[in-house]
Amino acid sequence: MKVAVLFSGGKDSGLVTLLLEPFFDEIELVTFSFGHDDAWKRAAAAAAELGHPHRRMVFDNCVLDKALGILLSTGYPNDALNYVHPIAVETMAKECEFVADGTRRDDRAPKMSFSAIRSLEDRLHMHYLRPLAGLGGKTIRAMASRYLDFEEMLSERYPASDFEVGLRYALKERHGQREVDRIFPSNHTHTRVIRRKRYVQKNEGQEDQACQGIQSES
Amino acid sequence: MKVAVLFSGGKDSGLVTLLLEPFFDEIELVTFSFGHDDAWKRAAAAAAELGHPHRRMVFDNCVLDKALGILLSTGYPNDALNYVHPIAVETMAKECEFVADGTRRDDRAPKMSFSAIRSLEDRLHMHYLRPLAGLGGKTIRAMASRYLDFEEMLSERYPASDFEVGLRYALKERHGQREVDRIFPSNHTHTRVIRRKRYVQKNEGQEDQACQGIQSES
Repeated sequence: MKVAVLFSGGKDSGLVTLLLEPFFDEIELVTFSFGHDDAWKRAAAAAAELGHPHRRMVFDNCVLDKALGILLSTGYPNDALNYVHPIAVETMAKECEFVADGTRRDDRAPKMSFSAIRSLEDRLHMHYLRPLAGLGGKTIRAMASRYLDFEEMLSERYPASDFEVGLRYALKERHGQREVDRIFPSNHTHTRVIRRKRYVQKNEGQEDQACQGIQSES
Repeated sequence: MKVAVLFSGGKDSGLVTLLLEPFFDEIELVTFSFGHDDAWKRAAAAAAELGHPHRRMVFDNCVLDKALGILLSTGYPNDALNYVHPIAVETMAKECEFVADGTRRDDRAPKMSFSAIRSLEDRLHMHYLRPLAGLGGKTIRAMASRYLDFEEMLSERYPASDFEVGLRYALKERHGQREVDRIFPSNHTHTRVIRRKRYVQKNEGQEDQACQGIQSES
């Protein structure tokens, strides 16, 4: 089985990769960009650290145009994020039966509704996986830290390959910093995976434990 | 780090165990029962197959009384399930910082609201993990099948240690089959883990792949 993971190079999509590794023969880390910056190269470097093949995909220009239009007219990022995210998922679903992303329990956007997910899976005969959908931010940090060194950085200063940061940069380029300040929160941060600390996921002693599995019942 | 997993012995809580294994030094599989049947012994056998310590916990009688009262007055299982489930999570949270369960994306009950989860985590300084919250039924089956042999059985005929089956049996014992037929769906099934097929979760070749991580960008 192969899974395509929407990969920004941060700790969230990094943790998704670690969670799915034992269950798939092949993992492809896929970074979508709007084609206007080279932040995807950092995602490619993080993918190499994780030890999986990486691919960059570029959204069509008309997708960026429409996303920027939504940003400008709504005045906040959520609707634009909810517009580009399913396009990325559907694009990958056309060539891979399993598609995963790093959207989290506490994220407000991008977020597909329950019925949109069911429709997507039925229509394209695919599986859409959100392994972090039931985990809070603190938990994700604790689990990711076991395998990954990562750093947190201000999105305003350092570009990244997540949809929010990509849109922020494209908006600045075309419409100026003032529109960015109007639409995006000023303190948005993202993380970047620097290093995979360990490969072996398995506690070597576990096989022995099986013999004494039942401990106590009260 | 230690995690307590609410464990019925089925493929869902089995998959939760497999997903969390690489991230925790210790996993305790905990089966809650209403104390009126020995279905928990099958969960203990499944825990031994998985290779982790198992514990049985028995709900207080007043919890069962109240749950049965809710069943009888509402006429459907959801509210009763939503009553007992947080009691189990909170009970474990008092002794373990990380508590996980096998509730799934497509489950309607038991399901805690977003704000109830945040309140629980803040109040008890704990992490509540729902690793299957972003996975559909088909996906769970595909992933669990890689490591587990499991069988599906009719809940009406075979007891199990999930909350729904436990309540169904207690209701039958106290109020008769007619009330069970009125309140519960007749075709409810559950699964039981029979065997863990493999232990090693790691693709041995992966370390080498790291050297050639970056493949292509388009």
